[in-house]
Amino acid sequence: MSDLRTDALHYHELPEPGKLETGLTKPCETQRDLSLAYSPGVAEPVREIKQNPSDAYKYTGKGNLVGVISNGTAVLGLGNTGALASKPVMEGKGMLFKRFANIDVFDIEVDCNDTTELIQTIANIAPTFGGINLEDIAAPQCFEVENALKSMLDIPVFHDDQHGTAIVASAGLMNALELQHKKIELARIVCVGAGAAGIACMNLLMAMGAQKKNIILVDSQGIVSTHRTNLNPYKQAFALETDKTTLAEAMENADVFFGVSGKDILTQEMLQSMAANPIVFAMANPDPEIDPNLAHKTRDDLIMATGRSDYPNQVNNVLGFPYIFRGALDVRAKEINMEMQIAAVNALRKLAHSSVPQSVLDGYGLDELCYGKEYILPKPNDPRLINVIPKAISQAAIDSGVAQIN
Amino acid sequence: MSDLRTDALHYHELPEPGKLETGLTKPCETQRDLSLAYSPGVAEPVREIKQNPSDAYKYTGKGNLVGVISNGTAVLGLGNTGALASKPVMEGKGMLFKRFANIDVFDIEVDCNDTTELIQTIANIAPTFGGINLEDIAAPQCFEVENALKSMLDIPVFHDDQHGTAIVASAGLMNALELQHKKIELARIVCVGAGAAGIACMNLLMAMGAQKKNIILVDSQGIVSTHRTNLNPYKQAFALETDKTTLAEAMENADVFFGVSGKDILTQEMLQSMAANPIVFAMANPDPEIDPNLAHKTRDDLIMATGRSDYPNQVNNVLGFPYIFRGALDVRAKEINMEMQIAAVNALRKLAHSSVPQSVLDGYGLDELCYGKEYILPKPNDPRLINVIPKAISQAAIDSGVAQIN
Repeated sequence: MSDLRTDALHYHELPEPGKLETGLTKPCETQRDLSLAYSPGVAEPVREIKQNPSDAYKYTGKGNLVGVISNGTAVLGLGNTGALASKPVMEGKGMLFKRFANIDVFDIEVDCNDTTELIQTIANIAPTFGGINLEDIAAPQCFEVENALKSMLDIPVFHDDQHGTAIVASAGLMNALELQHKKIELARIVCVGAGAAGIACMNLLMAMGAQKKNIILVDSQGIVSTHRTNLNPYKQAFALETDKTTLAEAMENADVFFGVSGKDILTQEMLQSMAANPIVFAMANPDPEIDPNLAHKTRDDLIMATGRSDYPNQVNNVLGFPYIFRGALDVRAKEINMEMQIAAVNALRKLAHSSVPQSVLDGYGLDELCYGKEYILPKPNDPRLINVIPKAISQAAIDSGVAQIN
Repeated sequence: MSDLRTDALHYHELPEPGKLETGLTKPCETQRDLSLAYSPGVAEPVREIKQNPSDAYKYTGKGNLVGVISNGTAVLGLGNTGALASKPVMEGKGMLFKRFANIDVFDIEVDCNDTTELIQTIANIAPTFGGINLEDIAAPQCFEVENALKSMLDIPVFHDDQHGTAIVASAGLMNALELQHKKIELARIVCVGAGAAGIACMNLLMAMGAQKKNIILVDSQGIVSTHRTNLNPYKQAFALETDKTTLAEAMENADVFFGVSGKDILTQEMLQSMAANPIVFAMANPDPEIDPNLAHKTRDDLIMATGRSDYPNQVNNVLGFPYIFRGALDVRAKEINMEMQIAAVNALRKLAHSSVPQSVLDGYGLDELCYGKEYILPKPNDPRLINVIPKAISQAAIDSGVAQIN
């Protein structure tokens, strides 16, 4: 394998800069074509949509078009890179939407850090899109932006760093709990990292049965407790009445370590102090909170997941967002609500239970892959994903009354 | 020919809604591909662009990407349709950019009528693009929006309804003046319609030699004179000291009628009152200011142009914007300045002087097409346009010091 840095720059630069283009889906050659696509014929769909706004879904690309929108304040693990420098990531996201779910994407980089102005800008351009995927916006701004847009707009607004991560991780975690014979209602969960992903994951796990009293949220200052001052309201909601302050104290007897923080945060000693049959989701990228080899050496009763593709049990957002939006767009859902998110978790879980198609094995050079400690989530190249997951989301949208077509 | 309305709706609806899609220009199949396109490899171009913002042109699609942006306040001849209903037009524009100049386009419909907020919204999303084509924004708002964005941004901002129309019409008009043995410096010009297109056309003609004292601007209230009150500043700049008030008075002895107004504004009597060898550009769409057959019957010394493809001398913006942006993007011009606009006029003019390729004739089922009263502008299907016009724009950008690469 040659140097990743060199290859990645080469990939993005040559033969043409970038990785996306726009293309025509209708003929545009003859005079007649032009008179239909543009003046004077284009006046007809304009008139129809003016009369009946939902006809935009009939005559334009809106219904299959997602805006991947960022202000570049929390890009990958690189922090606030600014809007312009986030463009390769947003284009990459667009590529994945297209590749896995045939959804068209405009990546929009917004040069704006003010929350009110950012909300207004995105709301203003919303008629363009059938859905909005917020991306790499720092917490706590991301919560406010998402909540405001959800209440203003009648198209799905989904912050993937929050909910995409939460859905995929929760699917893996529910399977891991099952395999370790633990109940989510009783599981003692330590979540390290109280940004977009951590908060959203804990909220989703609570919607699925986790008890707030069993969750310890830890940020860079230690345990989020009622003794802390200046907590933002999103952390405040998880503040525990406890005198404990350190991660080491939090980890004693924990069932689940849920890491969306940084490299080597979890020590061998902490892992040793966990309950029997522990579960470690060490999802920091590119370097997990504990080295998987070290972790397995420390605890042989462990189930472990990471964000990396070179270890078993990769928690990869690409298992979520393409199919979630596909399912939402297919029934023109007004939002992606909690029911739809839980349906996605359960559909992903179940897919890992059934036997894996040969093409998946071939893609990884594996002989077999069976539901168990090293296979708790489907693989991204599983062709069943597109057939199974969107249907589950669409059905949940219909059942929960947010679908606009069946 | 079947019914235009039925065909246009059918064209836009089937087999899939709309007429544009996004596509991938790089491989996205193997694990390795994904690790280059997205995490972790994508961090490399992000870091490069953060260090050196102009690397966005090296590693992303920005440099070939134009935002076609409208708030839907002046859509075709339909008036204020709102943002959403303008989407088929903006997608059509994107199609033409791609078809004629291989430029990628994101169409952005902005639900915002407030001028300050519209400017802010467009400026905020500008990092996404290599250029911005404003479209179908009503006058006088369009002038303020364009001027503000030009001063705020370092990418080309071009309101096609103003400058695209001005460039193509001026090219035709300069040839018509030559064929009628008239000098632009002496030509008496009546411009009917004082919106985006009319004002911009007169400004460009003045930059090419027309004298303000010879221009009579006419709006729906009659001649724009110093006796009028409540003129916006863009009209005020053309106010004449005259007691004349009507179009009929304006037309007496005029050399040029320049119409961007409405159907049948120009009567046979007015045409009769024009100077010898008159020039009539009746560009109202879909119905010109005077029926071409009636006009030619009235004056056999006439040169006439319209906006229609079924008569000779079509003034069609597609002769302009794709090639103007191609030329600007190719040298990463910071703006599309007056020098570049005049270069476009001259390049278009000259193309009509030289012999027409067989493929152009075949496309129109014609035996010949020679520079003269019925051929003052190139045809949209002329394959020489893409070879000739962008080069002229690029060179003018370099010569006028706004190109950032050679």
